[in-house]
Amino acid sequence: MTQPIVLAYSGGLDTSFLVPWVAEHYQRPVITVTVDTGGIDAAAARTLEERARALGAIAHHQVDARADYFEQVLRFLIMGNVRRGQLYPLCVGAERVMQAQTIAHMARKLGTQSIAHGCTAAGNDQVRFEVALRTLAPELEIIAPVRDHAFKRQQELEYLQARKLPVPPFGAAYSINRGLWGVTIGGKETLTSEGGIPEEQWVLSRHAFANPRAPERHTVEFAEGRPVGVDGRSLSPVETIEALETIAAPFGIGRGIHLGDTIIGTKGRVAFEAPAAETLLTAHRELEKLVLTARQQRIKESVAQPYGDLVHEGQLLDPVCRDIEALLVSSQARVTGTVHLLFRPGSLFVEGVASPYSLMAASKGVYGESVGEWSAADALGFSKLVALPGVFHTRAGELARRARS
Amino acid sequence: MTQPIVLAYSGGLDTSFLVPWVAEHYQRPVITVTVDTGGIDAAAARTLEERARALGAIAHHQVDARADYFEQVLRFLIMGNVRRGQLYPLCVGAERVMQAQTIAHMARKLGTQSIAHGCTAAGNDQVRFEVALRTLAPELEIIAPVRDHAFKRQQELEYLQARKLPVPPFGAAYSINRGLWGVTIGGKETLTSEGGIPEEQWVLSRHAFANPRAPERHTVEFAEGRPVGVDGRSLSPVETIEALETIAAPFGIGRGIHLGDTIIGTKGRVAFEAPAAETLLTAHRELEKLVLTARQQRIKESVAQPYGDLVHEGQLLDPVCRDIEALLVSSQARVTGTVHLLFRPGSLFVEGVASPYSLMAASKGVYGESVGEWSAADALGFSKLVALPGVFHTRAGELARRARS
Amino acid sequence: MTQPIVLAYSGGLDTSFLVPWVAEHYQRPVITVTVDTGGIDAAAARTLEERARALGAIAHHQVDARADYFEQVLRFLIMGNVRRGQLYPLCVGAERVMQAQTIAHMARKLGTQSIAHGCTAAGNDQVRFEVALRTLAPELEIIAPVRDHAFKRQQELEYLQARKLPVPPFGAAYSINRGLWGVTIGGKETLTSEGGIPEEQWVLSRHAFANPRAPERHTVEFAEGRPVGVDGRSLSPVETIEALETIAAPFGIGRGIHLGDTIIGTKGRVAFEAPAAETLLTAHRELEKLVLTARQQRIKESVAQPYGDLVHEGQLLDPVCRDIEALLVSSQARVTGTVHLLFRPGSLFVEGVASPYSLMAASKGVYGESVGEWSAADALGFSKLVALPGVFHTRAGELARRARS
Amino acid sequence: MTQPIVLAYSGGLDTSFLVPWVAEHYQRPVITVTVDTGGIDAAAARTLEERARALGAIAHHQVDARADYFEQVLRFLIMGNVRRGQLYPLCVGAERVMQAQTIAHMARKLGTQSIAHGCTAAGNDQVRFEVALRTLAPELEIIAPVRDHAFKRQQELEYLQARKLPVPPFGAAYSINRGLWGVTIGGKETLTSEGGIPEEQWVLSRHAFANPRAPERHTVEFAEGRPVGVDGRSLSPVETIEALETIAAPFGIGRGIHLGDTIIGTKGRVAFEAPAAETLLTAHRELEKLVLTARQQRIKESVAQPYGDLVHEGQLLDPVCRDIEALLVSSQARVTGTVHLLFRPGSLFVEGVASPYSLMAASKGVYGESVGEWSAADALGFSKLVALPGVFHTRAGELARRARS
Repeated sequence: MTQPIVLAYSGGLDTSFLVPWVAEHYQRPVITVTVDTGGIDAAAARTLEERARALGAIAHHQVDARADYFEQVLRFLIMGNVRRGQLYPLCVGAERVMQAQTIAHMARKLGTQSIAHGCTAAGNDQVRFEVALRTLAPELEIIAPVRDHAFKRQQELEYLQARKLPVPPFGAAYSINRGLWGVTIGGKETLTSEGGIPEEQWVLSRHAFANPRAPERHTVEFAEGRPVGVDGRSLSPVETIEALETIAAPFGIGRGIHLGDTIIGTKGRVAFEAPAAETLLTAHRELEKLVLTARQQRIKESVAQPYGDLVHEGQLLDPVCRDIEALLVSSQARVTGTVHLLFRPGSLFVEGVASPYSLMAASKGVYGESVGEWSAADALGFSKLVALPGVFHTRAGELARRARS
Repeated sequence: MTQPIVLAYSGGLDTSFLVPWVAEHYQRPVITVTVDTGGIDAAAARTLEERARALGAIAHHQVDARADYFEQVLRFLIMGNVRRGQLYPLCVGAERVMQAQTIAHMARKLGTQSIAHGCTAAGNDQVRFEVALRTLAPELEIIAPVRDHAFKRQQELEYLQARKLPVPPFGAAYSINRGLWGVTIGGKETLTSEGGIPEEQWVLSRHAFANPRAPERHTVEFAEGRPVGVDGRSLSPVETIEALETIAAPFGIGRGIHLGDTIIGTKGRVAFEAPAAETLLTAHRELEKLVLTARQQRIKESVAQPYGDLVHEGQLLDPVCRDIEALLVSSQARVTGTVHLLFRPGSLFVEGVASPYSLMAASKGVYGESVGEWSAADALGFSKLVALPGVFHTRAGELARRARS
Repeated sequence: MTQPIVLAYSGGLDTSFLVPWVAEHYQRPVITVTVDTGGIDAAAARTLEERARALGAIAHHQVDARADYFEQVLRFLIMGNVRRGQLYPLCVGAERVMQAQTIAHMARKLGTQSIAHGCTAAGNDQVRFEVALRTLAPELEIIAPVRDHAFKRQQELEYLQARKLPVPPFGAAYSINRGLWGVTIGGKETLTSEGGIPEEQWVLSRHAFANPRAPERHTVEFAEGRPVGVDGRSLSPVETIEALETIAAPFGIGRGIHLGDTIIGTKGRVAFEAPAAETLLTAHRELEKLVLTARQQRIKESVAQPYGDLVHEGQLLDPVCRDIEALLVSSQARVTGTVHLLFRPGSLFVEGVASPYSLMAASKGVYGESVGEWSAADALGFSKLVALPGVFHTRAGELARRARS
Repeated sequence: MTQPIVLAYSGGLDTSFLVPWVAEHYQRPVITVTVDTGGIDAAAARTLEERARALGAIAHHQVDARADYFEQVLRFLIMGNVRRGQLYPLCVGAERVMQAQTIAHMARKLGTQSIAHGCTAAGNDQVRFEVALRTLAPELEIIAPVRDHAFKRQQELEYLQARKLPVPPFGAAYSINRGLWGVTIGGKETLTSEGGIPEEQWVLSRHAFANPRAPERHTVEFAEGRPVGVDGRSLSPVETIEALETIAAPFGIGRGIHLGDTIIGTKGRVAFEAPAAETLLTAHRELEKLVLTARQQRIKESVAQPYGDLVHEGQLLDPVCRDIEALLVSSQARVTGTVHLLFRPGSLFVEGVASPYSLMAASKGVYGESVGEWSAADALGFSKLVALPGVFHTRAGELARRARS
């Protein structure tokens, strides 16, 4: 019997097009697999399944990977306060390895060696999928028709329309990716460096500025660097993220346009909404400042940025990521406490942080005025010694000048 | 004749108190010197001078150091996109070396060897002053009564009141520092980690959220990394900064509370308003993403963060700062262009960037769809090779497992 | 009853002098404690004890800290391939925290609150002791007479001679520190930057060049980054280090003169002999190249160098060291194998490395000629894509030039 | 008329084979160009030319690129103390960009668009050539027959023998690359990780250990980081390098086997002899320790290692290299002085360094004993403050423990 082809199916235009095209082109049955890394409610799941079947899939599977996604990737992005370009919280890149992993697992379970994905030759995802699948499951055959045949979105649309097959809601105009860590939106404006996207194209925060909400105060709770609750309610990490998206999105928190370097060496641009990521990254970072030593913060930063690059580049399976994660986990032993947040339209303000491990409380010293366990003489002695390299450098310059004259 | 003592005079409580105290204690004339690193208009300058004289200074000098401040420090903070703790734009630390330098210069000019400053034993500024002065002018005697006698703000207030001497406007309640790069505000709320400061204590943006303004669009122009204009008007860097403060402050841009590590090893907290710094740092960073290669951005980041630490720690005179500055200047050769900004209350949004050196335009490739100068086969070849380390790592693990069994 | 004072006793001139001086000055009994971090054989131990008692100690304790020293410090120096200034294997700095820790433990055990050490005000060790003791046991009183009274070595010598008390063998001429990780030698030549020390002052390798040995081949074995044997014999890490010292010292391996930055900001210079450290660091580094991915090596390097600085500066108790150690341990999962070494006078040559986790074996490709799992076309595709940033950068420059003209 | 093909010609087996093969296959005249980046004396140059013509080249050009090579690459490797894997001084990688640049220049001069090179699909050089040529001269056609046809060394040998054409001296057994910065030697032993190469295969130091020389002392002089003389004789940088090779090679200095990561993701191994590089890198590094502040050394190190990677990967044309070079040049302002070296068979020992900018002389303090411009109390004050983060960390842990119980 013909082995089926397992198609990584997001429900977007590329992968919708691939259901009939792959079936027709390879003359093999297609099974669609949607990996839920967040943002798919029951209604959306039903729609996805119905559309997949309408497009010709012989079976459709949806796998809830949210908790795994948090444990394998998101918690480290939080622990490392990871953003690309000091801005973008890696809404998409982190999902791809999870998806590749899940798809490879499903292929084995369904007894097939063939996997198809809808990535183009111009983007990051082709590389992420290839790297992850080759590393995890070198025995699989990987089919990438959009990359290899260079289908354009308009062609795909016409292919579906010609066959009277369902077309995903946004059609060819905007390309949307939604997950636990945020939404990305690509459109004609993001093809150049200059324009913003139209207000009505934002997915989570469409009315944030037109209908401003009254200010709200909330707290987020962390335990050893993990988000564990909102406003005093204990929640799982995934629930915390989802609760924060609900709170922060209507305030327009976490919107941005990212201009970045693709894995293949081009510059790319994408709009994003990441209300939960923005809130958690900001809150966590400020809590860390209370409980980590200065040196801990420096070292973390020096490995967190490469970690973000590795996630972006689909290299999460390189063992170096395990090494960095070990450092990050170690650093979080005391990142336990509460962050007080003030939400206003367009503005997230950290009003304060509290922790049983507060180094500020431990210092007891009153900043700006009195001294605690050291005297003015100690402070002067300290200043004298930290000035020494400068003093010697100045003097060496003078000595050399004199020697020359 | 008795040599005068040159007092670094900001007009705040500590240095106001020192005018009479130093004169009385040392029985020597006091000359006040105010170094203008921004934020002092004509009226404020007059008030400062009048108060200095009323407090007993035999002379008062104000030195405009704004342009020097930009050239010696601020431009590198912009070129390096430098913030502490991914948040705070170093509003204060950077001024101190400038001030020390100017005061040392004035002391020489005024023919004295004695300098006084008002720093406490608990803060950063004592170290910054000592390091800079010792490095620049080791022959000077440095007098630091607030540090050495541990005067409290209440004592200082009472001393002035007892002598019916003028008391600076904020009295003992809040300690304000204002300069070109922003305002810092310390008060009882910042002595612990939890509270925000009262809305009325903000200096530049007091009514931003109560009286929200309508959105505004502006542009900032850069040439080789230097800010050179706003909305198409050519301005000097200092004028650009001042113009952006006027634009951004009423939107509440650049507010925050920074919890950081002091040079002496404690944790400290301070509220700040840095509308111009926030706007410039954000705009510059996004413009760089268009014109720098990915590698340039990485390397810059790796030296910019230590640079910020050095500025914070008063080590700007260590020659390593010259080395880092050389790298930063080199990196800015193409950071020329325009940044499009949308201001809304609490929100600064970069809508786009443009540059004659756009790497996005140079790539011509259309992100998300078609490929430019490489084929799908090239992209696959690339993916195969970047997957190799992962593939070999997996295989080596299997080989070792088999060898053991 | 008068509490005794516990004196950290190395048997050198400073601490020998302190036994009678502290007893006399404080009128309290002195108990000497020698922490064995290597290099003290039975005879030396006996001599130390006898001399301590002859100098007036009411009791003497020697604590074998070698295995702890390895577990707490040395294994991480190996895992991180840590040297200062690309040369010096931190022979001394790493011992001080161990010693402080052991002394604090002994003080508690002996029921006293007072500890004395013999560090000067000019060196690193005073800082290391103070930092470690304050962090570990803030309740202890720390007595540092050599620092506080600025005793000179000649004065100490005369003090002992005047009282007819025993003087340590090297007298005042050279200051020797010997431990598991090597020997340091300070003398008049190292007080300036120019001279080497006389051949006869080397401790471990005195005759290496005068009486050259015939070449020898040896192997060292590692398991998960830990040294576990020599020439196929299973040994504990401490035994491995001691065996390698015996092998490598007669070849003059690991000699050097280190010119470095002291913690307090001066430049200092010291001769050292570290045959075992040199051999292990070199062997381990080469084995890693076979089994770690390129990225693992990069990240390790980026945290190992700060780790060395922290050890040097006595900051091993900062929690950041735990974080870095977590990364290092994670990175060693596959650092298991054998290193083939060729010893010749003055020369240590790594002839080869072998590991069940060899990435070279896993790649199967033959370097220099044939390709394995990728084609020439793949390699060309890869080259084209990694060239893209350069191509775009060149083109952007041309486009900007044309736009200007 | 048929445009000639310019062949990058090293005289090794691959490029010797290509002269007739390219001429035959493309039916176009072949012009050989040898870029002299060192190691070619007059006799060798004559041999190269004669062989090229005997193989069928219609013309042969040799370009002396040694001075350019120094200015464009080697001086930065020295300034940055750059080695790969803490061992290998990048003997080969750095040459390739120089060669690509020179060949591109010659092609333009000779009025042709076609360039051929002899790189395989398994090594680094193919990538280096492609990246450099595409960036510098995108209009050129690049011909790479050994990569694209996967010729084996044996095949090439047979092809030449069949046509009775000259075969380069080492035949197919060892692949040698010689330049100003050293020699690399690949052979069957380096195809696995375990073996060393036979003693007689070393090119520069064949008899170093069999016929040990008597010790020699020499000095190297630097001016602003540039090597400018040996033993007091003023020499150009290229002459200095060549003089040091003559001195150091007979002592066997700079031999090693490098196991590293290729650009394409495999592990590769190569033997090398780099007597001049080893000597200069060691001497320069030690001189820097005398004149640079600790912070300068740290920052240099943090950018020098990525610089080495970029050179290795053929990315010298990425503008980030200009940025790093700017930092390196800035850091060398005071790296002027003399290094005293003791050569013994297998051993290079730095006995001392001297500079008019000595920070050790400027500190005047005598390391190990007396203090200069700070007191014991200052040193204690310093120690107390640098201990604060540890003290607070310990206390915060206790406070949290108490709060829990």
